[in-house]
Amino acid sequence: MAKLLIVGSLAFDAIESPFGKTDKILGGAATFIGLAASQFKLDPAIVSVVGGDFPQEYLDLLADKGINLDGVEVIKGGKTFFWSGKYHNDMNTRDTLVTELNTLADFNPVVPNGYKDADVVMLGNLHPGIQLSVIQQMEKRPKLIVLDTMNFWMDNTLEELLDVIKHIDVLTINDEEARQLTGEYSLVKAAEKIYGMGPQFVVIKKGEHGALLFHKKEVFFAPALPLEEVFDPTGAGDTFAGGFTGYLASTTNISFENMKNAVIQGSNLASFCVERFGTERMQSLKKEEVDERLYQFKALTQFNIELQ
Amino acid sequence: MAKLLIVGSLAFDAIESPFGKTDKILGGAATFIGLAASQFKLDPAIVSVVGGDFPQEYLDLLADKGINLDGVEVIKGGKTFFWSGKYHNDMNTRDTLVTELNTLADFNPVVPNGYKDADVVMLGNLHPGIQLSVIQQMEKRPKLIVLDTMNFWMDNTLEELLDVIKHIDVLTINDEEARQLTGEYSLVKAAEKIYGMGPQFVVIKKGEHGALLFHKKEVFFAPALPLEEVFDPTGAGDTFAGGFTGYLASTTNISFENMKNAVIQGSNLASFCVERFGTERMQSLKKEEVDERLYQFKALTQFNIELQ
Repeated sequence: MAKLLIVGSLAFDAIESPFGKTDKILGGAATFIGLAASQFKLDPAIVSVVGGDFPQEYLDLLADKGINLDGVEVIKGGKTFFWSGKYHNDMNTRDTLVTELNTLADFNPVVPNGYKDADVVMLGNLHPGIQLSVIQQMEKRPKLIVLDTMNFWMDNTLEELLDVIKHIDVLTINDEEARQLTGEYSLVKAAEKIYGMGPQFVVIKKGEHGALLFHKKEVFFAPALPLEEVFDPTGAGDTFAGGFTGYLASTTNISFENMKNAVIQGSNLASFCVERFGTERMQSLKKEEVDERLYQFKALTQFNIELQ
Repeated sequence: MAKLLIVGSLAFDAIESPFGKTDKILGGAATFIGLAASQFKLDPAIVSVVGGDFPQEYLDLLADKGINLDGVEVIKGGKTFFWSGKYHNDMNTRDTLVTELNTLADFNPVVPNGYKDADVVMLGNLHPGIQLSVIQQMEKRPKLIVLDTMNFWMDNTLEELLDVIKHIDVLTINDEEARQLTGEYSLVKAAEKIYGMGPQFVVIKKGEHGALLFHKKEVFFAPALPLEEVFDPTGAGDTFAGGFTGYLASTTNISFENMKNAVIQGSNLASFCVERFGTERMQSLKKEEVDERLYQFKALTQFNIELQ
C-alpha cells in the first residue's frame, strides 16, 4: 500500500459557534488530515508532538484508524498545543480567542525510518522551517509533496515560506491568502504567479464557495455541497487536504485528471466534517456514507449539453 | 420556433470601474437578456419603454439580432431610464451614483398580440406590479414564467412582490436577497421557504461564486468561469437570465435535467458579458466562441470517479 506521511499539529480545540460551545476537544491539522485520509486504502503516518496532557484515548482513536504514530513525540512535562476560536453568525468568519503553542513551539519533527520513502507527503499548516526539515529528511523525492499554509506565515516568515514552496508540487491556500501572497486579485493570475514560485499545481480553497485546482492553463472547480446547516467549520480545510492526498496516494495516480477526482473527494469529506463539532462526524464516518454523498456531488455538478 | 417574451428596462448606463469609465452607453435588463437569448434559435420579443432620446441605432441593433420590438413604447417627449454606478476594486461591490427612472416610472407594458401566447416569459427586474400585469395579459399560461427581482422591491413593495411570485415557476435572485426574503442564512433552507411562496424552481446567483439551481430536494451548481480579468460585471445577471430562458425556450424542454444545461448556458454567456464594458462583448459574440467556452465549462466541472 502507498505510504502517506502527514506532518501537522495534534491539538486541543475549544470552539464557540452559534450552535453551542465545546470544552477542550480533539483538534489539530494532522488529526483532521489523518481521519480523512484513513477513509482510503493506504498506509498513513503522522509526525507531530504533544504534551503529557494529551489523552491516550485520542492516540488510540488515530491508531485504530490504521494511522502509524511512531513519529508522534510525547513530551511528558509539556502541554499540548491549544487553540480556541469563536465563529460569527455567518459561520464564515471567526475570531481566535486563544493560541497556546506549548510543545509545538519547539517542535523538531523526526520522520520515522519506515516512512522516509513515503509516496505522498502532506505538510499541514506549520512554521515553514519545520515543513522544510521534513522534506530534507526524506530518503528519496516523494512522488508528490503537498503543502498547506496560512497568512500568519506570510506575515511573519515569508522568506522561509518562499524557500519551502520551491520544493513542493501542490500548494493549498485560501483565496484571500492567494491574493496576499501574489498581489493579484484575479485567482487565475494568482495561480500563475504561484507556479513561478515552484508548485506546478495550486489549490485555492474558498470555503463555502468551493475549491479551484489550477495546473498550467487548466482549471477545475469543486463546489462545496450546499448544506442545511454548517455546524462547525473547524478542520474543513485539513479534512479537504486529507481527502485530496489520501485519494491520490491510494490510487497512485498523480495526473491532473485524477487530481480533479481528488479535489472532489476532499470536498466530499469536508462536507461531513462541518456537520458536527470538531472531529465527531469524521470519527464515525462510514464508507457507505462517503460513497452515497459522492453521488450527490455528481448530481450537483454533472450536466449533459450536447456539443457539436 | 418557440416564443420568448422579455419584459424589462432598455436604458442608458454610465459605468466606472478600476479599468476606466464610460459615457452613457446602451444598458438595461431587457437589452442584456435579449442579446443573450438571441444566441439561440427562437423568436424573442421585448416589452419595454424608452424616451425620444433613445438612439434608433440601439433599437436597430436589437432588431438585427432578430428581436421583435413591437412591444417597445417610445415616448417622444420623455427621457430613457438612466443608471450610473461605480465598481470597487474587488469588482464585486458597487455604489449606485445615479438612478433616473424617467419614462420607466410610468411604464405600462403592453404585450403585442403576437406574443400573448409566448412559451416562456422572462420578467426582468422591475416593479412587481408591472411584472404581474404582463402575466395577466397572457392569453394562455406560458409553459414557464421566470422572474428576476432585487432587494429594492423587498424593501419597498414586499406585498406586491409576494403576490407576483405566486404566479411564477422560477425565481432568480442573488444570495443576499434570498437570505433577506426568507430570513434563512442557509441557501438550502432559503430555497425551501421560497418554494412555499410559489416557485417550484429557485436560482440563487452568487456572482463570481457561481449559481445554484434548486428544485424539490435536488440542487445543481454552475461555477462562474475563472477569468484573468473581470472588466465590468454590469448585466452579468441579466445575461445569465437571457441564456437560461433562451436555451430553455429553444429546446422546448423545461425538465430539471435540462434546466441544469440552461444554468450552464447562462453562466457561459455571462462569462463573456463581463469581459468588456456594457454590451460590447455580447454585441459581437459568435456561436463558435460560445461553443468553445462550453468545452471549458465541461473541463472545469466534469470528473470521473468510478462509483461502485
